[in-house]
Amino acid sequence: MESLQDYMTSVGQRAVSAARALASAETGQKNQALLNIADAIIAGTDRLIKENAIDLAAGRENNLDAALLDRLELTPARIEAMAEGLRQVAGLPDPVGEIENLSYQPSGIQVGKMRVPLGVIGIIYESRPNVTADAAALCLKSGNACILRGGSEAVYSNQAVAECIKQGLSQTGLPDTCVQVIETTDRDAVGYLIQMQDYVDVIVPRGGKGLIERISRDARIAVIKHLDGNCHVYIDDKADYDKAIAIAINAKTQRYGVCNTMETLLIAEPVAAQLLPELASRYLQKGVELRGCPAACSLIPECLLATEADWETEYLAPILAIRVVADIDEAMQHIHEYSSAHTESIVTEDYSKARRFLREVDSSSVMVNTSTRFADGFEYGLGAEIGISTDKLHARGPVGLEGLTTQKFIVLGDGHIRS
Amino acid sequence: MESLQDYMTSVGQRAVSAARALASAETGQKNQALLNIADAIIAGTDRLIKENAIDLAAGRENNLDAALLDRLELTPARIEAMAEGLRQVAGLPDPVGEIENLSYQPSGIQVGKMRVPLGVIGIIYESRPNVTADAAALCLKSGNACILRGGSEAVYSNQAVAECIKQGLSQTGLPDTCVQVIETTDRDAVGYLIQMQDYVDVIVPRGGKGLIERISRDARIAVIKHLDGNCHVYIDDKADYDKAIAIAINAKTQRYGVCNTMETLLIAEPVAAQLLPELASRYLQKGVELRGCPAACSLIPECLLATEADWETEYLAPILAIRVVADIDEAMQHIHEYSSAHTESIVTEDYSKARRFLREVDSSSVMVNTSTRFADGFEYGLGAEIGISTDKLHARGPVGLEGLTTQKFIVLGDGHIRS
Repeated sequence: MESLQDYMTSVGQRAVSAARALASAETGQKNQALLNIADAIIAGTDRLIKENAIDLAAGRENNLDAALLDRLELTPARIEAMAEGLRQVAGLPDPVGEIENLSYQPSGIQVGKMRVPLGVIGIIYESRPNVTADAAALCLKSGNACILRGGSEAVYSNQAVAECIKQGLSQTGLPDTCVQVIETTDRDAVGYLIQMQDYVDVIVPRGGKGLIERISRDARIAVIKHLDGNCHVYIDDKADYDKAIAIAINAKTQRYGVCNTMETLLIAEPVAAQLLPELASRYLQKGVELRGCPAACSLIPECLLATEADWETEYLAPILAIRVVADIDEAMQHIHEYSSAHTESIVTEDYSKARRFLREVDSSSVMVNTSTRFADGFEYGLGAEIGISTDKLHARGPVGLEGLTTQKFIVLGDGHIRS
Repeated sequence: MESLQDYMTSVGQRAVSAARALASAETGQKNQALLNIADAIIAGTDRLIKENAIDLAAGRENNLDAALLDRLELTPARIEAMAEGLRQVAGLPDPVGEIENLSYQPSGIQVGKMRVPLGVIGIIYESRPNVTADAAALCLKSGNACILRGGSEAVYSNQAVAECIKQGLSQTGLPDTCVQVIETTDRDAVGYLIQMQDYVDVIVPRGGKGLIERISRDARIAVIKHLDGNCHVYIDDKADYDKAIAIAINAKTQRYGVCNTMETLLIAEPVAAQLLPELASRYLQKGVELRGCPAACSLIPECLLATEADWETEYLAPILAIRVVADIDEAMQHIHEYSSAHTESIVTEDYSKARRFLREVDSSSVMVNTSTRFADGFEYGLGAEIGISTDKLHARGPVGLEGLTTQKFIVLGDGHIRS
């Protein structure tokens, strides 16, 4: 029998070979493949639900919690949404081959940059089978071969989705190895995947912080990763009160368990007494627990005293930390110290302070008079995202098709030589 | 006495703090600092030459080879060139703060990308003291604090340059810790530098392959690196003969010891008999040793039979490997197999083949009818380069000011909340 290492090596080699074919595939062919995969998924609905039922039964047997089981479940509506996601990616502009800034240099050569695929992308994710289709679609459209490694709890579902993908690729004349879903549930497969420098160009882990930290630590390949979303809204003393309240409530309460939710509210001292009581009553009505600095506590009777840990925590829950600050400088200092550099927003009508905040705050998204909940690939017009990067290099913030590509220089001459 | 670890930690902390000040420094102030440093370097000529003499004497005592001693030496002309380099960087456009594609989304928010510094850059380099000034200039202009670690053989020279830099920074009102040159020659300092994830955002190693491999292996921080330059020119059967000969001679012989020199010439079989004898006689006149495939050897009596190793080698010397290939497909297959993905050029008058080569060859620079020797930051109009990246992520090819920056998303609203 083939060893795990041999299996992973051949997966890697097949991916490299598929990547070459895919890199020069025409846009129309890639779009057709996406549409064919969407059709195969719809046609495969019964089979998908049958295979998914095996995962669900095993999940119940293994006492997976209700939230996980819910995420694992495929319904006809979710299968239709998966297909619709593929059709949407087919409709996005193709980033590959786009040429930027082609211009003549003093020597007479023309120099520009051409956008090209990264090559082979390894994606490691948990539970949701729809990620198999979403990730495959983004990689395919951006001209990258991909190796997908889903959670063992979704292995039957993922393999069933993989079958539909293979079918769509073959129908279009593209190698069905453009998308490979790892077949074994052996946990060591991840270890090999993140060390295969010769075959894999970038790793995208999607899942809990533990998974991402472990992969970042052990990978010998570049990782596009997203750790924390400890996001801040700063209400300036020159804020419009209605906008401030609308944004502060929306940023915290529109959804609790996502990375672009506000976790700490910073508010300028001159307006704290006027705004905090009203904000607090709205938060408390919605069941949000408040933890504040002494000044915040003195204005809100229900507020618990925050500890240092509160400023550092991504609650992902109906809990909010509140701190009264002297001014924008103290707000930016707090952000610099505690933020995970995901998303921060200032609420102000003051032009100079808006300008400073935009320039000086070093986070992947910096906003003025807007809810942090907008930090999202769809809202940003990227069409879809493979994740949100909190790294600085390569891709920062929501990562769409462009983040899965790179640029090479192209040089056009007519016999030019260097003197 | 302070331990090495404590020293490196405080260097890192000072850099982070300087980086914040520098990120929001105005363009005019950064330019003025560069000009002041240039003046300080010119004014410090005598002192620079005196300190450099200490390094040179130690180098002679330690039997450094002549080429190394030559690179180490500072002369009045080289000091003037260093100052001129700083003035040129002052004259380049400031990439920081540049906003791209700010556009309205369906929700009403405006989303764009702002170019921002990476933060703190660690640069590790060998022998040439001018790198101290060059690297400092590029980091400063791109708004990054930097930590420079030069070779121990140049420690007095580098510290003298560092003094001039400090002086120029202070005169301009910028923290003199924007540029820190590590004072100890303890080799373990590099080990700390490349592991300080909390303080350093990216490492740029400049030097021999051994140094770069070691740093890439051990770093816990992203590395912008350049390994090999195994560059190819492919002369197609539809090449213009005069252009082919001019380019093939220039790409190999204009300079031997640099990364963008051609190391393997690929030539299409239909034109090999006509072109190779003339090319060979020119190469031999210039003292270039030829190593070829059997077909090349049969056309060139002086050609040695190439081994597998020849296709893989970056000679950095007057040696050229030559391979006769059937067509563009075989040429691209050879490049795919052996190239270090630095720079490849096709010589052809055929539109379709030029178009295919540009799209399908996966190297940091891909050229048509041009000498590979053009792959260079100055020739590309970047103004100056910190190196040439053979990586795919973040920066690929010559890395100028833009490669030392990243982009964050900025979002402008007017009380917008997500529904």
